[in-house]
Amino acid sequence: MRLLVVGSMAFDSIRSPFGEVERVVGGSATYFSLAASYLVPVRLVSVVGTDFPAEVIRTLASRSIDLTGLKVSEGKTFHWKGFYEYDLNTAHTVTTELNVFRDFAPVLPEVYRDTPYVFLGNIAPALQLDILRQVRRPKLVALDTMNYWIESSPGPLREVIGKVDILMVNEGEVRMLTGEYNLVKAARRVIGWGPSRVVIKRGEYGVLHLSDGTMFAAPAYPLETIFDPTGAGDSFAGGFMGYLASCGDRELTDMDFRLATMYGSAIASYTVEAFSTEKLQNLTPEDISDRLGSFLALTEFRV
Amino acid sequence: MRLLVVGSMAFDSIRSPFGEVERVVGGSATYFSLAASYLVPVRLVSVVGTDFPAEVIRTLASRSIDLTGLKVSEGKTFHWKGFYEYDLNTAHTVTTELNVFRDFAPVLPEVYRDTPYVFLGNIAPALQLDILRQVRRPKLVALDTMNYWIESSPGPLREVIGKVDILMVNEGEVRMLTGEYNLVKAARRVIGWGPSRVVIKRGEYGVLHLSDGTMFAAPAYPLETIFDPTGAGDSFAGGFMGYLASCGDRELTDMDFRLATMYGSAIASYTVEAFSTEKLQNLTPEDISDRLGSFLALTEFRV
Repeated sequence: MRLLVVGSMAFDSIRSPFGEVERVVGGSATYFSLAASYLVPVRLVSVVGTDFPAEVIRTLASRSIDLTGLKVSEGKTFHWKGFYEYDLNTAHTVTTELNVFRDFAPVLPEVYRDTPYVFLGNIAPALQLDILRQVRRPKLVALDTMNYWIESSPGPLREVIGKVDILMVNEGEVRMLTGEYNLVKAARRVIGWGPSRVVIKRGEYGVLHLSDGTMFAAPAYPLETIFDPTGAGDSFAGGFMGYLASCGDRELTDMDFRLATMYGSAIASYTVEAFSTEKLQNLTPEDISDRLGSFLALTEFRV
Repeated sequence: MRLLVVGSMAFDSIRSPFGEVERVVGGSATYFSLAASYLVPVRLVSVVGTDFPAEVIRTLASRSIDLTGLKVSEGKTFHWKGFYEYDLNTAHTVTTELNVFRDFAPVLPEVYRDTPYVFLGNIAPALQLDILRQVRRPKLVALDTMNYWIESSPGPLREVIGKVDILMVNEGEVRMLTGEYNLVKAARRVIGWGPSRVVIKRGEYGVLHLSDGTMFAAPAYPLETIFDPTGAGDSFAGGFMGYLASCGDRELTDMDFRLATMYGSAIASYTVEAFSTEKLQNLTPEDISDRLGSFLALTEFRV
């Protein structure tokens, strides 16, 4: 079953307490598609400049990621520069150079329009709406957003949230979006707007997955070495949607959403062990199933 | 099997975003002993002033809490005044009036000296050492402490940590104590000092339980109404130690420690739903087993 992702591809310059890197490959669509590619074929929609490395594009293509929807524009690739303090949960932005991303107006290739699983990465809500108009009756749509859009574009954001199945945001974002500090109440408010599920990312504390009537809490894996949390949320989303898309046409159960959460958590736990996509792009299926087993051991108890 | 607790009994004046109370009953030994009393008989060592309400003492006594070790001194009971912001994880102290607690020098009644399970609540490390000298070959000793003792009494604190089986602290405390930000590394350092287990309390994010070779992560229960987090950590400790003590003489397994963690989490999740001990002291065994069942549903997944 196919999975479509729309999002950024970027260069990141990052300082963390464990080192510093300049202009390494990043972006939400990059992390998402690499993570999901362990589970299903992915269709990517994004834009890069002519400075984007050809070998990265070859790597993506070699991993069953369809790049028909990747536009290469004259100019420079989106560049994010930021840093993390010892509290690795918060990314501090130094500069954001949108470059070719400024004029990103995604047009879906005809072959993409029937994709059943869709992930709308963190881009302008108006563009997310535009993508939704171009896909034909998708089975499941998930959406990410951020504080910038919550503040600058509340109308279109609320409209697009009303049209998706899953909202996937972090704790601070869902609080800001709903005006509710309590996460159970915040999720219920979002569910009142349309989505059936809210996936709340909590960094080193894991994920809280709420729907009408069920709750699932997954810890993050307690790692000894976290080099760089950049891309953890997008890798999580990729593993999560990748697992769901791998279920294909059958009806998704509550247990599927739980296992999707754990696939996302397992893959994301590898992403943060190195800068950029270095670790993420070199996993084996055994790495992922090993980490799933470790998560079982981490959370198991019997009454 | 018996369980001994040494700690404070107090009046608390608390402001939270959900209300304000004046001079309600609190204190680590109060919360701990009430929580543990659902599982085993408890022996309490503490001190109160003559102003402490007789009916509270009657309530404790009625719940199989042995008060032979409770001293009533001329003067006023320990009084803590503080508040919580919307982030309920951090207690802000306004005033601390030690009163009769200033001269607390616990002497164990002879009948207490053979208690197999011991919890050293958050008091001066020198007093915790003194208690340990008075008990005869306990089976399992757990210890709580706080930033105040980490800064003011590092020598005695390190000495007493070296003599206990379990260190039970919050995230900030274990980081401060070890100088390690990473919790896995911090726990390993503590285990190098003597304890075999470190239980890290993370407020609304739950508990991380680490030993040499095993890790267990328990979420906190996502509640819609949290009125007052005061006493949550001590209620957790009471449920945790209460379950272990209920295992009696048999060898404790890793699964026992996991289930102990869940008993602690279940009982603590009720404590925070009301001010003071109002909810904690009126639970039924069914309430506790219901919440354990809810925790299973909250965390269960199958690969």
